[in-house]
Amino acid sequence: MTVLLTDAEVAARLDAGTAVAAIRDALLAAEQGRLLAPPRVAAPLGGGRIVLTAGHLRDDWYGFRSYDTFDRPDGEQLVVLHDAATGRVRAIAVGEEIGSRRTGALGGVAVDALARPDAATVGVIGAGRQAWTQLWAIAAVRPLREVTVFSRTPAGREKLVARVEAELGVRARAVADPGRAVRDRDVVVLATTSPTPVLSAAELSPGCHVNLVGYKQVGRAEFGVDLLDRADVLATDSPAQAGAYEPPMLAAVEPYAGRLRSLGAVLAGTRPGRSTADQVTVFCSVGLAGSEVFLLDRLTR
Amino acid sequence: MTVLLTDAEVAARLDAGTAVAAIRDALLAAEQGRLLAPPRVAAPLGGGRIVLTAGHLRDDWYGFRSYDTFDRPDGEQLVVLHDAATGRVRAIAVGEEIGSRRTGALGGVAVDALARPDAATVGVIGAGRQAWTQLWAIAAVRPLREVTVFSRTPAGREKLVARVEAELGVRARAVADPGRAVRDRDVVVLATTSPTPVLSAAELSPGCHVNLVGYKQVGRAEFGVDLLDRADVLATDSPAQAGAYEPPMLAAVEPYAGRLRSLGAVLAGTRPGRSTADQVTVFCSVGLAGSEVFLLDRLTR
Repeated sequence: MTVLLTDAEVAARLDAGTAVAAIRDALLAAEQGRLLAPPRVAAPLGGGRIVLTAGHLRDDWYGFRSYDTFDRPDGEQLVVLHDAATGRVRAIAVGEEIGSRRTGALGGVAVDALARPDAATVGVIGAGRQAWTQLWAIAAVRPLREVTVFSRTPAGREKLVARVEAELGVRARAVADPGRAVRDRDVVVLATTSPTPVLSAAELSPGCHVNLVGYKQVGRAEFGVDLLDRADVLATDSPAQAGAYEPPMLAAVEPYAGRLRSLGAVLAGTRPGRSTADQVTVFCSVGLAGSEVFLLDRLTR
Repeated sequence: MTVLLTDAEVAARLDAGTAVAAIRDALLAAEQGRLLAPPRVAAPLGGGRIVLTAGHLRDDWYGFRSYDTFDRPDGEQLVVLHDAATGRVRAIAVGEEIGSRRTGALGGVAVDALARPDAATVGVIGAGRQAWTQLWAIAAVRPLREVTVFSRTPAGREKLVARVEAELGVRARAVADPGRAVRDRDVVVLATTSPTPVLSAAELSPGCHVNLVGYKQVGRAEFGVDLLDRADVLATDSPAQAGAYEPPMLAAVEPYAGRLRSLGAVLAGTRPGRSTADQVTVFCSVGLAGSEVFLLDRLTR
């Protein structure tokens, strides 16, 4: 029988440590060529598109995530897992918890691989679902001492502060501007919907690691090229997907493309990560195709 | 909550009359531009592809069918129905009953629209699932007197004969060659996996209607061009999809393409169907995209 999971069931069953471990394995599998993740495909439907991102873990499973661009109030995604030996549909998740926790876990793996070992403070700009899942995953890879939160509305940042304290048991406070959110922070997360830069790279501390979760394309990015200029290490979960964006991703065009490395390669030890405590490391999250199915497989195994 | 339907549930809940009525409405909606059905898209996954055919009934629903080409023993398809107002996933069917009953119902609509009003005998070549769903749907649009069945193995044809008698209450008999299956028949169904012609058009009776369900492309077809030459009326459920096949469909290239009409246009009365009792009518079934979602909507409304 096919297992059908709702968002509530995913939230109840998936802990951050499991998610981060699964996504680390997914990145390594992609790096080693065992996880195949072709470019996304889309079917136009008049006023919106249905988009499919597929993945195939050789000899194990294949599947996809589907989502649409209609922007309906309760628009739900699907993640579908087929058994590779039989073709049977093993599991389906309806909603968006798998997708957003996958993105959070990518951020957690990036922090684990690239932030200083003693990183203990996080500054986050943005207070939506993506900001939350980043903190959820980061708290699983570093013992956090304090989180600072800025977002445009006081109510939004206070709500995230309360959730961090209640669910992660980490001290958190809201601040009134982006600069104060990232000042003296070991880890910075940008998880906004802003198409223009929300901070200057000069506001970051030496040794900081940054996760970029929002817009990051030429002409539409929550940060400026000053951040890429300042990065000593520039990584992404999928260089192939980063290069396929339209308009292109800032980090996937020159002079940055030559320095952009795969997070999987850093995990595998074939490309260097951080080498000194004062380097600035930057992770551009694109959402490795197939990684949602990877997570659903782990969750229902 | 999302409704999840298995093949057994679809089979138990869907009667042929409902399926034929739904698919007639789908063909009319496509003809009138209310049902949008873009070309299929596919993601390559190493050794196979995941294919998505999407549909959107304006102001009502959107969704898709997904299937793969891995050819696994229990390979299952998905049909997914989103509410157009909210984006919520209303229903998912796992398996292939919706798809094969949709194809059967297309054949039923074609027989209803194009066969003689007094058609009462059916000859079918092929004895698989597609042959069965054609008979299931045709029995809902004409009171049948007798069905003759040919397929390559005696066991296969005897099994279909037994099912027709048991489930449709129609007299049926197996015959030992294709010519005897179609001789003096009012309706003929080709539902084989043959890449080469299984009968000569000369074996068909005047006034016969033919449903073509198997291969129908240039270089790979269960019939020869003699059948298209003999057809007085040549129809398909989707001229756009027929024209997009690779290699092209025989009926979608000249000299036949100019005569190929949409079954929806025949239903709408904008293109003629049969005009005399001795005309030969031929329906090329391609599987209108979105029609599986249409059927799932009717089934779960």
